[in-house]
Amino acid sequence: MERFDLNILGCGSALPTTKHHLSSQVINLRDKLFMIDCGEGTQMQFRSMKLNFNRLNHIFLSHLHGDHCLGLPGLISTMGLLGRTAELHVHAQPDAEKVFKPALQYFCNRFPYQVLFHPFNPAKNELIWEDRTLKVYTIPLKHRVPTAGFLFEEKPASLRHIIREMIDFYRVPVSQIKAVKDGADFVTPEKEVIPNHRLTRPGKLPRKYAYCSDTCYFEKIIPLIEGVDLLYHEATFGEKDSASAQLTFHSTARQAAQIAKSAKVKRLLLGHYSARYPDESILLKEAQEIFPETIQGNEKMVIKI
Amino acid sequence: MERFDLNILGCGSALPTTKHHLSSQVINLRDKLFMIDCGEGTQMQFRSMKLNFNRLNHIFLSHLHGDHCLGLPGLISTMGLLGRTAELHVHAQPDAEKVFKPALQYFCNRFPYQVLFHPFNPAKNELIWEDRTLKVYTIPLKHRVPTAGFLFEEKPASLRHIIREMIDFYRVPVSQIKAVKDGADFVTPEKEVIPNHRLTRPGKLPRKYAYCSDTCYFEKIIPLIEGVDLLYHEATFGEKDSASAQLTFHSTARQAAQIAKSAKVKRLLLGHYSARYPDESILLKEAQEIFPETIQGNEKMVIKI
Repeated sequence: MERFDLNILGCGSALPTTKHHLSSQVINLRDKLFMIDCGEGTQMQFRSMKLNFNRLNHIFLSHLHGDHCLGLPGLISTMGLLGRTAELHVHAQPDAEKVFKPALQYFCNRFPYQVLFHPFNPAKNELIWEDRTLKVYTIPLKHRVPTAGFLFEEKPASLRHIIREMIDFYRVPVSQIKAVKDGADFVTPEKEVIPNHRLTRPGKLPRKYAYCSDTCYFEKIIPLIEGVDLLYHEATFGEKDSASAQLTFHSTARQAAQIAKSAKVKRLLLGHYSARYPDESILLKEAQEIFPETIQGNEKMVIKI
Repeated sequence: MERFDLNILGCGSALPTTKHHLSSQVINLRDKLFMIDCGEGTQMQFRSMKLNFNRLNHIFLSHLHGDHCLGLPGLISTMGLLGRTAELHVHAQPDAEKVFKPALQYFCNRFPYQVLFHPFNPAKNELIWEDRTLKVYTIPLKHRVPTAGFLFEEKPASLRHIIREMIDFYRVPVSQIKAVKDGADFVTPEKEVIPNHRLTRPGKLPRKYAYCSDTCYFEKIIPLIEGVDLLYHEATFGEKDSASAQLTFHSTARQAAQIAKSAKVKRLLLGHYSARYPDESILLKEAQEIFPETIQGNEKMVIKI
């Protein structure tokens, strides 16, 4: 199986503690790195997890609260000092460029590489990045400020598998087999269209990872994340603090589990813990009562998707 | 002796490593905290050294390179989330406000406290802050961008000591003893002026701490830091990399020691180490050959001044 790993750099919430760093994750898909959120201290965590700055070309910011993005100028500065020349792409809401440009112009103006901001509309579910191996979609979330989660969908490395007996039955010529494996329908000499799904079976299913933070309990995301292999859903609070969750547009661990269950995801990963919990195993317990396949996220964890 | 401690939060140079954090120090003078520089990650180090955000009212920035100031927005944001209401004073060059204002306006606009920038001219040696217990002066340094070090001078808590036999000899009345202890001359009934230094001895000498980073070897600072109790002088490089020091306007450990020796300081503290040294004891050794009273700075060190 080709590499599709999730690295957790930080899974604390607004206030950094001695235990948790601020939000940041890095996806490693076939040795290309994609960062999600970039709280203060992200570059240090990146380094201490022995990730390679040269393989990082895309950063996705869910929203513009400081704990999710204030590590950006330092990270950009460090990559410049290390001699980076490749463009860096920052996918974020339109405000991001305005907010960060003055600091970048001041601190990073002599670096031999460009930082390109790609604004997206956090209220829409749309494709915002695509390359040979990956598609990234936004997932509109509900928080105090405009916020989007992200769905990372691998492009299947393998083509569809032909069904030998159907190929023989319809006499598909060898010259057209490649197109059929790629997903094309077949047209017989008699102009009859044979739909592709009668000629082929799917190849390997594409793996999917969904990142949903920060958000209150929001059922509209369920169809957008249905069946994903791994769902990261914020679980800032436990049940006893559900009033705080409601007030601040965050979720409880139990609500995260409810979303995971309704969306029939394979596994749920918790994070974005409030600093008030000295031990987050209570959050894990509350989530597992509803959705047993729950993992308690932690710094330096690497999860295979 | 009243408390006058130096806390080292970070003593690495431009690139954070797994070993060193970016530049920041906190002076604790009689339980009031004064921060010098604020690289990314400073708020985490502040917390892990169990310092108290409520006692911090002044931040001094030596220069506007990212590794000395990019932790400022996150620190300001965290103090806001913690409910701070007291004003925070940031002493820095005139550009600082322009550079940080957009991020502060965006991320910290709803906080119940004000951040006030106090610009200073880094090319001048002048008093930039004074309160009941402390005077802070700038020390012009020589670096690639305008940079100033800082001299922290305690105001002596105790008055001058009277010399009993002289007080008796001149028949200084009891009603004037307080004025004499405060430093006043005494005028006899015959209108003869007795200068204060014949009536008193100095009380406790004021303690002094000088912070000099970043800078190349720069002899003009010597008279400004003469005899200080502790000098922090950057020692980015060792002798074998003295060409790099010259090129980047940094100092070698030996140069730091030479300055300490010429200025007859009591102790020298090294820091701002280049990431290229896996073990900085070579820097300590090179400095101690010239100035034995040298300390190798390290994160979480607390030094009594």
